[in-house]
Amino acid sequence: MEYQVKPANGKLGILIPGLGAVATTFIAGVEAVKKELAQPIGSLTQMGRIRLGKRTENRHPLIKDFVPLAALEDIVFGGWDVYADNVFEAAQNAKVLEPMLLHAVKPELEALKPMKAVFDKSFAKNLDGTNVKEAATKMELAEALMDDIQEFKEANGCDRLVMVWCGSTERYIEESDVHQSVAAFEEGLRNSDPAIAPSMIYAYAALKMGVPYANGAPNLTVDIPAIVELAKEMEIAISGKDFKTGQTLMKTILAPGLHARALGVRGWFSSNILGNRDGYVLDDPDNFKTKEVSKLSVLDEIFKPESNPDLYGDMYHKVRINYYPPHGDNKESWDNIDIFGWLGYQMQIKINFLCRDSILAAPLVLDLALFTDLAQRAGMSGIQEWLSFYYKSPQTAEGLAPEHDIFKQLMKLQNTLRHMMGEDLITHLGLDYYQDLVEAL
Amino acid sequence: MEYQVKPANGKLGILIPGLGAVATTFIAGVEAVKKELAQPIGSLTQMGRIRLGKRTENRHPLIKDFVPLAALEDIVFGGWDVYADNVFEAAQNAKVLEPMLLHAVKPELEALKPMKAVFDKSFAKNLDGTNVKEAATKMELAEALMDDIQEFKEANGCDRLVMVWCGSTERYIEESDVHQSVAAFEEGLRNSDPAIAPSMIYAYAALKMGVPYANGAPNLTVDIPAIVELAKEMEIAISGKDFKTGQTLMKTILAPGLHARALGVRGWFSSNILGNRDGYVLDDPDNFKTKEVSKLSVLDEIFKPESNPDLYGDMYHKVRINYYPPHGDNKESWDNIDIFGWLGYQMQIKINFLCRDSILAAPLVLDLALFTDLAQRAGMSGIQEWLSFYYKSPQTAEGLAPEHDIFKQLMKLQNTLRHMMGEDLITHLGLDYYQDLVEAL
Amino acid sequence: MEYQVKPANGKLGILIPGLGAVATTFIAGVEAVKKELAQPIGSLTQMGRIRLGKRTENRHPLIKDFVPLAALEDIVFGGWDVYADNVFEAAQNAKVLEPMLLHAVKPELEALKPMKAVFDKSFAKNLDGTNVKEAATKMELAEALMDDIQEFKEANGCDRLVMVWCGSTERYIEESDVHQSVAAFEEGLRNSDPAIAPSMIYAYAALKMGVPYANGAPNLTVDIPAIVELAKEMEIAISGKDFKTGQTLMKTILAPGLHARALGVRGWFSSNILGNRDGYVLDDPDNFKTKEVSKLSVLDEIFKPESNPDLYGDMYHKVRINYYPPHGDNKESWDNIDIFGWLGYQMQIKINFLCRDSILAAPLVLDLALFTDLAQRAGMSGIQEWLSFYYKSPQTAEGLAPEHDIFKQLMKLQNTLRHMMGEDLITHLGLDYYQDLVEAL
Amino acid sequence: MEYQVKPANGKLGILIPGLGAVATTFIAGVEAVKKELAQPIGSLTQMGRIRLGKRTENRHPLIKDFVPLAALEDIVFGGWDVYADNVFEAAQNAKVLEPMLLHAVKPELEALKPMKAVFDKSFAKNLDGTNVKEAATKMELAEALMDDIQEFKEANGCDRLVMVWCGSTERYIEESDVHQSVAAFEEGLRNSDPAIAPSMIYAYAALKMGVPYANGAPNLTVDIPAIVELAKEMEIAISGKDFKTGQTLMKTILAPGLHARALGVRGWFSSNILGNRDGYVLDDPDNFKTKEVSKLSVLDEIFKPESNPDLYGDMYHKVRINYYPPHGDNKESWDNIDIFGWLGYQMQIKINFLCRDSILAAPLVLDLALFTDLAQRAGMSGIQEWLSFYYKSPQTAEGLAPEHDIFKQLMKLQNTLRHMMGEDLITHLGLDYYQDLVEAL
Ligand SMILES: NC(=O)c1ccc[n+]([C@@H]2O[C@H](COP(=O)([O-])OP(=O)(O)OC[C@H]3O[C@@H](n4cnc5c(N)ncnc54)[C@H](O)[C@@H]3O)[C@@H](O)[C@H]2O)c1
Ligand SMILES: NC(=O)c1ccc[n+]([C@@H]2O[C@H](COP(=O)([O-])OP(=O)(O)OC[C@H]3O[C@@H](n4cnc5c(N)ncnc54)[C@H](O)[C@@H]3O)[C@@H](O)[C@H]2O)c1
Ligand SMILES: NC(=O)c1ccc[n+]([C@@H]2O[C@H](COP(=O)([O-])OP(=O)(O)OC[C@H]3O[C@@H](n4cnc5c(N)ncnc54)[C@H](O)[C@@H]3O)[C@@H](O)[C@H]2O)c1
Ligand SMILES: NC(=O)c1ccc[n+]([C@@H]2O[C@H](COP(=O)([O-])OP(=O)(O)OC[C@H]3O[C@@H](n4cnc5c(N)ncnc54)[C@H](O)[C@@H]3O)[C@@H](O)[C@H]2O)c1
Ligand code: NA
Ligand code: NA
Repeated sequence: MEYQVKPANGKLGILIPGLGAVATTFIAGVEAVKKELAQPIGSLTQMGRIRLGKRTENRHPLIKDFVPLAALEDIVFGGWDVYADNVFEAAQNAKVLEPMLLHAVKPELEALKPMKAVFDKSFAKNLDGTNVKEAATKMELAEALMDDIQEFKEANGCDRLVMVWCGSTERYIEESDVHQSVAAFEEGLRNSDPAIAPSMIYAYAALKMGVPYANGAPNLTVDIPAIVELAKEMEIAISGKDFKTGQTLMKTILAPGLHARALGVRGWFSSNILGNRDGYVLDDPDNFKTKEVSKLSVLDEIFKPESNPDLYGDMYHKVRINYYPPHGDNKESWDNIDIFGWLGYQMQIKINFLCRDSILAAPLVLDLALFTDLAQRAGMSGIQEWLSFYYKSPQTAEGLAPEHDIFKQLMKLQNTLRHMMGEDLITHLGLDYYQDLVEAL
Repeated sequence: MEYQVKPANGKLGILIPGLGAVATTFIAGVEAVKKELAQPIGSLTQMGRIRLGKRTENRHPLIKDFVPLAALEDIVFGGWDVYADNVFEAAQNAKVLEPMLLHAVKPELEALKPMKAVFDKSFAKNLDGTNVKEAATKMELAEALMDDIQEFKEANGCDRLVMVWCGSTERYIEESDVHQSVAAFEEGLRNSDPAIAPSMIYAYAALKMGVPYANGAPNLTVDIPAIVELAKEMEIAISGKDFKTGQTLMKTILAPGLHARALGVRGWFSSNILGNRDGYVLDDPDNFKTKEVSKLSVLDEIFKPESNPDLYGDMYHKVRINYYPPHGDNKESWDNIDIFGWLGYQMQIKINFLCRDSILAAPLVLDLALFTDLAQRAGMSGIQEWLSFYYKSPQTAEGLAPEHDIFKQLMKLQNTLRHMMGEDLITHLGLDYYQDLVEAL
Repeated sequence: MEYQVKPANGKLGILIPGLGAVATTFIAGVEAVKKELAQPIGSLTQMGRIRLGKRTENRHPLIKDFVPLAALEDIVFGGWDVYADNVFEAAQNAKVLEPMLLHAVKPELEALKPMKAVFDKSFAKNLDGTNVKEAATKMELAEALMDDIQEFKEANGCDRLVMVWCGSTERYIEESDVHQSVAAFEEGLRNSDPAIAPSMIYAYAALKMGVPYANGAPNLTVDIPAIVELAKEMEIAISGKDFKTGQTLMKTILAPGLHARALGVRGWFSSNILGNRDGYVLDDPDNFKTKEVSKLSVLDEIFKPESNPDLYGDMYHKVRINYYPPHGDNKESWDNIDIFGWLGYQMQIKINFLCRDSILAAPLVLDLALFTDLAQRAGMSGIQEWLSFYYKSPQTAEGLAPEHDIFKQLMKLQNTLRHMMGEDLITHLGLDYYQDLVEAL
Repeated sequence: MEYQVKPANGKLGILIPGLGAVATTFIAGVEAVKKELAQPIGSLTQMGRIRLGKRTENRHPLIKDFVPLAALEDIVFGGWDVYADNVFEAAQNAKVLEPMLLHAVKPELEALKPMKAVFDKSFAKNLDGTNVKEAATKMELAEALMDDIQEFKEANGCDRLVMVWCGSTERYIEESDVHQSVAAFEEGLRNSDPAIAPSMIYAYAALKMGVPYANGAPNLTVDIPAIVELAKEMEIAISGKDFKTGQTLMKTILAPGLHARALGVRGWFSSNILGNRDGYVLDDPDNFKTKEVSKLSVLDEIFKPESNPDLYGDMYHKVRINYYPPHGDNKESWDNIDIFGWLGYQMQIKINFLCRDSILAAPLVLDLALFTDLAQRAGMSGIQEWLSFYYKSPQTAEGLAPEHDIFKQLMKLQNTLRHMMGEDLITHLGLDYYQDLVEAL
């Protein structure tokens, strides 16, 4: 059984709700790369290689030479925002990239003006932009988005589209009745049900238009049954949620290492200092609460304290986010990890990560856009668990625990690509290299 | 094709050349665990679980319940050292474990007296013990060791034996003619060739007696063609070299994570401070040189700068070991890692690992002893590449690059165990969970 | 003009309200020192030296050989607590000192049983001990304390007494009318005014009995005008408040250094993790608020942003205390300091202090007791500003800003001792060493 | 007795042997400050204040408003280097300041061309510049320098001159006969004695011309008896040596704090990573040796282990400098400090200082130039011990131990300024504020 992956002919439109720090760093970066002013570091689709076949074959092509991905030259950008600033202005405000670099791509960025957003202040009280659609019902808002999408596709001569949410984190909500089926959801759209968040309207519009959707924020959006049902019905790919960067990235690297060696963990204290808008919002204990829940779950899934009570049963895990303006977008984390080894003897690990939030997130937008487009062309619809690698809270089919270990996520991603292209899966067994031995079995 | 793994009946003798810090911490620990005074944390064979079958089957047995390993109760210890101190005295000198704990297992440790060592001062000039064998030739020394082994086996009623080298690091030597074949090596033993190190004599004696050998030091020992040939001939398992602990352990966890995300690395500065005998020896620039070479290679293999020149081509990697008596066996490392992401923007990671050297090494001795015995019972002879997980410089068949990524090493180890027991290998592909999708293909 | 310091004849009783972690670490330590089992490290009175005269005289006596202090052998301990545990039991609960050490002084500690406390649950809702005095009014409670003091003095044959508060931090209160004069305060005692905290009743009783009082907690206690008035009237020494340890100690060392060099500070982020009872209480945002205010003021006083706006005007200072049980009393702090130098170029300092809270506080109890007794014998009554060295929020005469720079505090302390003993004050001018120059003036 | 400080009328010429990273950062900075593009942060003479009189007087003038210093507008720069690059080119090569800033002062920097150096390859084998004076004897070289000085003074209309050495560190040499008196030294100049270093020739020429000399490198230069004698004879100010920046600055801040509190120190491990030319040279164990000696002495002088054996007698102090190109001039230090407190309980402090070498050094050049000129105008000649504050190895009169505690150095500097201007010295005694008490004495 093999995939028939359609070729990546023609233009790919990347549609982005939310043209803030991450999105503008992503767009400016792609333009700079196209001009050969910089490199798309951190992007697996552009810089990464994949091993194929046996070790002795020495086949390690670039991923972009192995699977048929859209070329950067064929990408067109579009987006919505509640603020009317063009992408050049928005990138300047974000203070992530240096003025010199921004000026080198100024014409391209200035040409990108956000479409009017679907917005509801009750979901993000800190925002007060006015570049917002007006309509009688949420269904009409959805239809307006579909019109935007259609117009964008035609105006830009796009062959295919993908949507990647880079908008703000919305207020926490729980699933309710209106989210349970396509029918209920559409009824809700017509009634302007308050439980339907703006991000859901974008996702609905995208799927109805045959556009796959990737969710970079911790919003509920594509997790709800109605959207999953619609994705299956329309045979469209979806995935989420919350770009995995910074401290959580580091955790899902280190924790599997400690677990691999059966080292115990008594405590893990994580402190973050950051001074961008995200940090300001998360400094509020209420807003932080939901983020905390999701951040805490990462370690539990990797360590599985219930099956390893002697090693992880008493682990005390605490995450703190501290708003600290002097650092701006240069998020910095400090982790103290109390581990124990042989006979319970204690050791400590301290990690200080001086990172840059949007610099880590931008290449994920690119990879998610290109891989999602690839999946769609390969006929893979519904939840794309193989993209777990990119998310803090990977979306999985009901009943399946998400995988947080970044190395298992990578293996899953790579073996999916190999599978797609009819290559052997890699198990790292490698006993066949030891001929004598194999013959002796 | 399936392995016929023989059951682990009867006693397993663990023979250890070198009863210093690591070995005594290992032995005292096993005795304390047997008395239920402490737990064998850090030992995969004792504490680790393995996932079997599909995720939805929820099968995660303890490894020791999955593969037939020798029970701790069936282990008997023996060893050689150039100092005549019994294991209780040697453990006290090592200052790793607390007096209280040592006293709880004092009778067991006191009863363990080292056999006379095969020793050659030209390979370790700092040692001046006198518990040393005298003989006319190196062949006679080998025969004396074989007698020791035979006597030990009988006296302790052992069913099987394994040997794990925990002796000092020997002076660096390169392969020469005498190492190229069993014939040349045996001729060298008879001539007392100066290029034959004591550790090689132990390995030769072990293999001749049908005893598998695991090499915890960076010594050449089992890497030489003569010993590899002998291992094949005798159908005995060998593996090495250099227990992977501390900073290198941390590196082979973190580097694969950075590589996974295609993040670039400009520099990696590693400083260590430690105050035990090992640190004292390595403070000498000459002794450190060979250690440095091996330590540096770890990152190169993971990052493959030649195939990723834009990401790792200019990486400056420096490792320093500083003798610092106040810390004793509490080795501490500090790493500064200069990385870069999207468009070349720079970030830094600082890791301070307050570790304990012998506490990290002791469980590796246990796992290597038990897994080596398992391999032998499974009929797996020669180089055990699947034990790479435990080594700084994994031994592989000629022509195969060693794998340093600890997560690939773990995958290799686990899939080997699954393969041994006739279970499906795990690829983390997982597309089958997404039924609709698979049917749709 | 010179002091007539009375000799330290006879026994000195140290009376301690609050026999918790700090007090028991202090008492057990003094007993261990008396038995020569350990040394009173961290105590200036026991280990410190003082330079006298010109540098070329080479006079650096131990402080205890320079000024007439009570000898450790002449100290007798007493105290109150709301829990009836003797000091041995309380020390065990505190988990600061090792069992071995505690057992070595067990008889001495077991003999120390707390007197019944003056307590009011509204000032410390987490405490529920029952070893508490009952009385009709607060005045009667004060009288009961005076009886305790009198009895203790007689029973132990003490020549002199000092009181050092080591009790819990009380709920924050502001000064009110009842605190404004001795008359109002005594009226309040008779009326059981709710604004009179238990610690104030101890202080009142002490001063009435001629016993000087030192305040180790951030409580208002001796800061109120009524107590200052009473201290002057009775000619008794008082001082406070809040033992300076840990992160604040580090800050008042480092900040003067940056200020000395006119280096600017953009931000100072201070995170603490600790797992003792103190940490538990301070994890609550409300309780932390007042602590925060006091902690923040430290930097302001040293940097004086109003007179150095270019260097410190925009400084963002944030202090966080995080309850983290795995660390127990081993408080750990992490500071990130963003500084700037020549032309505004930015630099960073990161400090990770793995400290032990009570170990740092215990010697301060000893020094404060001995120096307070010295001051009293020297006829120095009222506020002892020269003891600022020991406090987070030094008490000063009205209208005088407290000095937080630990080096100015030390200079003040040392010059006070020199002054007391008729020695020349030290200014570090030192031009006189350069004879030719001086003659040339 | 008061100084008659002459006013700072007319132009002050600052003559600098060695126009490398430090000197060009200094000059470019002063030019930028004059254009109000940046601020002279880190310079006490420009940004610092001094307290005068009693605390209650609230007098804290800027130092430059208190003592008569040369104004930045009145400064003229000149210098020598073995490379002929003008200061703009040299600053570009140094890669300390951003291109944008350098361009803003390009005309001023380009106009500054180095005079031909007095140079001797045997003292700095890494340098191979050709902008070097040729002459028959070292005396003739000295005379050529005197001519340079005279010409510079006239050409620039200077009223006064000072010389600050910012040249490379010379090879280590010990004092020999030729250094013992002016007579022997001049004889040596005539004989071109190989023990006379280039820096000594500059110092000799300066003093003969009535120009005071400050020594920013660890070179012997003005420490030798001949130069001290000449300085007295000519009544000219001298001082040295080695600008105190980075890790040593941090040490002389922190160590006095630990000492103040009588906390013990078991070990202090200092690691540095830096990638500039200085780092390259110091990576060589031989070159590092002398630097190490001087760096180690700092702690000894502050802790005085011989008089505090219980606290500091066993202190293990180790300093490592590691060449690490990725960091360039951004020197980074990591210190691990093992301290102990009450009863010997152990604690640790880790300090990671991400500093910039030349940014910290540049303001010291300015302060030393201005204060040295002030001293000269105040009639203070010979060794200026009050400038110890700026040096790693402060020069003192024979028989006087150097003071390394930065807070005593600051007190010395400030009290010298007060003394100079007829203000009361400050002792921080402050008992006079406590009126009642003082009356009671
Ligand atoms: N490393 C990272 O930066 C990172 C990591 C994980 C997740 N994320 C998530 O990515 C998202 C974007 O982060 P950012 O740093 O760019 O934030 P940002 O605040 O800079 O940008 C968000 C933008 O979304 C716009 N917006 C909000 N609601 C909208 C709506 N309904 N329609 C259209 N536009 C809308 C806002 O006006 C703003 O311009 C956030 O949800 C964040 O939590 C970021
Ligand atoms: N984390 C770790 O501790 C770690 C990690 C990797 C490798 N290792 C290696 O493990 C080995 C043991 O480390 P350790 O800390 O226990 O060292 P150690 O010095 O405490 O003990 C080594 C012992 O070997 C003995 N010995 C030396 N030559 C011998 C010989 N020919 N025959 C018999 N005995 C001999 C010595 O007398 C000594 O007692 C070293 O080679 C070390 O490099 C240790
Ligand atoms: N480094 C330090 O440990 C440090 C530093 C600065 C200040 N402090 C302060 O020192 C004090 C003691 O700290 P600790 O760690 O020993 O706390 P702790 O909680 O261990 O001990 C305090 C004791 O005071 C008792 N107590 C409370 N109210 C009382 C009353 N009215 N009368 C008699 N006893 C009473 C409690 O029962 C308890 O046993 C606290 O106020 C703390 O904030 C400690
Ligand atoms: N934080 C700091 O940067 C710092 C701290 C303490 C001391 N120092 C000392 O300051 C000095 C300058 O440091 P840098 O970083 O600017 O070094 P650098 O190498 O960048 O500059 C030194 C310059 O001196 C020149 N030079 C050498 N010998 C000379 C001679 N005889 N006559 C004229 N020019 C000569 C060289 O050509 C070079 O241009 C060094 O001695 C260094 O050790 C620097
Ligand atoms: Na180092
Ligand atoms: Na925090």
